Amino acid sequence: MLVSEHSFDAVVIGAGPAGEVCAGRLADGGLEVAVVESHLIGGECSFYACMPSKGLLRPGELLGEVRRIPGVREAVTGELDARAALARRDEIIHDLDDSGQLPWLEDKGIRLFRGEASFTGERRLTVGQDLLEARKAVVISTGSSAAVPPIDGLREADPWTNHEATTAKAVPERLLVLGGGVVAVEMAQAWSSFGSRVTLVEREQRLILREEEFAAELVADGLRERGVDIRLGAGATAASARDGEIDLELETGERLSGDQLLVAVGRRPNTERLALDSVGLEPGRPIEVDDRLRVNDWLYAVGDVNERVLLTHMGKYQARVAADVILGKDARITEDGARSPQVIFTDPQVASVGHSLAAAKEEGIDARAVDLSTQATAGGSFFGREAPARTRFVVDQGRGVLAGATFVGPDIAEFLHAATIAMVGAVPLERLAHAVPCFPTRSEVWLNFLEELGL
Amino acid sequence: MLVSEHSFDAVVIGAGPAGEVCAGRLADGGLEVAVVESHLIGGECSFYACMPSKGLLRPGELLGEVRRIPGVREAVTGELDARAALARRDEIIHDLDDSGQLPWLEDKGIRLFRGEASFTGERRLTVGQDLLEARKAVVISTGSSAAVPPIDGLREADPWTNHEATTAKAVPERLLVLGGGVVAVEMAQAWSSFGSRVTLVEREQRLILREEEFAAELVADGLRERGVDIRLGAGATAASARDGEIDLELETGERLSGDQLLVAVGRRPNTERLALDSVGLEPGRPIEVDDRLRVNDWLYAVGDVNERVLLTHMGKYQARVAADVILGKDARITEDGARSPQVIFTDPQVASVGHSLAAAKEEGIDARAVDLSTQATAGGSFFGREAPARTRFVVDQGRGVLAGATFVGPDIAEFLHAATIAMVGAVPLERLAHAVPCFPTRSEVWLNFLEELGL
Repeated sequence: MLVSEHSFDAVVIGAGPAGEVCAGRLADGGLEVAVVESHLIGGECSFYACMPSKGLLRPGELLGEVRRIPGVREAVTGELDARAALARRDEIIHDLDDSGQLPWLEDKGIRLFRGEASFTGERRLTVGQDLLEARKAVVISTGSSAAVPPIDGLREADPWTNHEATTAKAVPERLLVLGGGVVAVEMAQAWSSFGSRVTLVEREQRLILREEEFAAELVADGLRERGVDIRLGAGATAASARDGEIDLELETGERLSGDQLLVAVGRRPNTERLALDSVGLEPGRPIEVDDRLRVNDWLYAVGDVNERVLLTHMGKYQARVAADVILGKDARITEDGARSPQVIFTDPQVASVGHSLAAAKEEGIDARAVDLSTQATAGGSFFGREAPARTRFVVDQGRGVLAGATFVGPDIAEFLHAATIAMVGAVPLERLAHAVPCFPTRSEVWLNFLEELGL
Repeated sequence: MLVSEHSFDAVVIGAGPAGEVCAGRLADGGLEVAVVESHLIGGECSFYACMPSKGLLRPGELLGEVRRIPGVREAVTGELDARAALARRDEIIHDLDDSGQLPWLEDKGIRLFRGEASFTGERRLTVGQDLLEARKAVVISTGSSAAVPPIDGLREADPWTNHEATTAKAVPERLLVLGGGVVAVEMAQAWSSFGSRVTLVEREQRLILREEEFAAELVADGLRERGVDIRLGAGATAASARDGEIDLELETGERLSGDQLLVAVGRRPNTERLALDSVGLEPGRPIEVDDRLRVNDWLYAVGDVNERVLLTHMGKYQARVAADVILGKDARITEDGARSPQVIFTDPQVASVGHSLAAAKEEGIDARAVDLSTQATAGGSFFGREAPARTRFVVDQGRGVLAGATFVGPDIAEFLHAATIAMVGAVPLERLAHAVPCFPTRSEVWLNFLEELGL
């Protein structure tokens, strides 16, 4: 029985980063906005993904760098303090309490409904006993959840997903990781840095498939140096749990045992509970949107749920565009999908944007790769001295612009935005030759790149 | 008496970074090239400035960061090891031995003359007993040296310049620093990190005059926290040395004592020994060049010696352009002078490019500053947590492009190149809104900037 009816200009379902950004921008634009959230305001990213994972990785990353630099490595006599690191992680995720987000919603005049949204028809949905009507638009931003593949006994073994891997209160002695994507490699590194013996199982012959192959190799090398046992080219066929131990059986027949098993083999969009059939959409299918993020003239989907690209920053970008479209502006996304910028916070880090060489060629671009050492600059003398590091720039020779870039090295996350701006701004390579990187920063890799092109 | 005569297409006087780059590019372009160097191939920058100074700063910078990050700070129980840091610095400067540079010259087919170059007329100069003739061009790239101001007793007190401050083999107990520019603040930080009690004396009311005022304040705060005693607004009037102690008298009448005194109050171009009068130039005056780096149809000057901007990377940029002009290409410098990118490697670091707000207004630009916290991004949760940090973007509202940027914060040197590309590429701000910074990198300061502009 419905207790009350409400009407808003816009209703945003899901208060992860994309939903929050969209709702905030709509409210700033003068609309009356409601947000529906069934779990935590701030979403997967803030509590169970990007934020805690980087919190867990940072101490080990820094210790790795300190140990490479004479003069300071002598000051380090101890190991990481896992308890202090986990406590800091808990601060970062506010002990899974989202009340710190409430004043922001209130300031913006956004009404919060806690619960599951379920469509009842066009522009109408229920949340518990409330009926919400959207006069202009409904935005779906319910995100994604870890996929658990149909492997015998896996679900019953109650494995970790990113939720437990990022919020665990104790360090497992032995951790099995199923998968070789971003979550898998980052969590393998984080827990191994606190002393877990980690075994990573990936069905493909390499890690982080979206990235250039050399990046995958350098990440694998880095993990192996930290003691991670990497098994490539063999999927898991069965899992079982007993007496606090989890066993994983591989295609090869081999059996691996661990105290925990992390499943990190992909994501599925959170759409089951939305009753999408009542608005003419097929449940269980990706929600397709155009470059204005529209499903139709009143329904929008932003972030992971539309499956265009599963990255927080791209979800927020989509959210800004969707809000602008709803506010009547002529906005559209121009950068998206596989070309999106991404950073993997392993050691070495991987930061990439645009096309890999192979992807550029597949798209018919007259592409040329320029391969460089990330460290072969004067600035490389001061950072990650013995760390292997490589950079690839991919040039669109026809247009005379950058088509992609991949930086691999210690602490290179912030290198990426220069490449993103050069690419999105379509800055001619000849003009880039006048953008002088500072000596002795490691950004002089740009200089080496342009000299390689004869500029 | 001259022993031998030589003829080359081009003669480059001075083998610092600018001279090396110019000679290398000319040789790559097919010219017969000679280089003249009176001291070390690699120049001031490699042996007495940028390189050793960053080598000295890096351990303390890293220790500062480690102490801010829970989980890893517990691993640090000791202090910096000055002996190890100085040994690493010696590696970086190759123990002041430049023989590692010789194979590079040989590979390029560049002939090296060691000694002082002295003009004898147009396109002709002597180096010791050798007479060199340049068929096409002579490039002066003799750099600059520390200026010692006419203060009573100062020269006689035999103070440190950047040479000794970057190559000293022991840590002075008490270090006086005269000056408040880049060399002064970097060396004050470096030596204080190894235990020196540092007092810095600057005539002006603030440090690093070229930078935005807030940057100067944050750098001063950082130095004070490290125990540096900063005296602003009072110049030195006299110096004296006795029994291994140096005294400095200030305008206020106050006397300061130290075990060493570093003079870092500016630079003067190295032109005295070139016999510039024999080619019609007035000795002791800056060598003026046009935007092709030409003094006249055969004489060029690149790097510090032309006094356009005293930065290694800009000297190398000028060198590339000069070489291209000599090789007959239509090249010119478009970015130069006060707008040049620069990084100061203190803690916090300062990285700036383009106009400060005041400079933009002086130039008649319809300028607006957007001031942000460098740390108020998700990525700021993982870096320099308690470190103060601020960023200013300066917008050219008339053209709708970036006119300048100043980043202050821990480990932000590599932030700068994104701003340099945006500015030099004149990427419209509306386009920049599609260049999405990765979550959770600190480059999201760009997002905060663009949102502040309503983009």
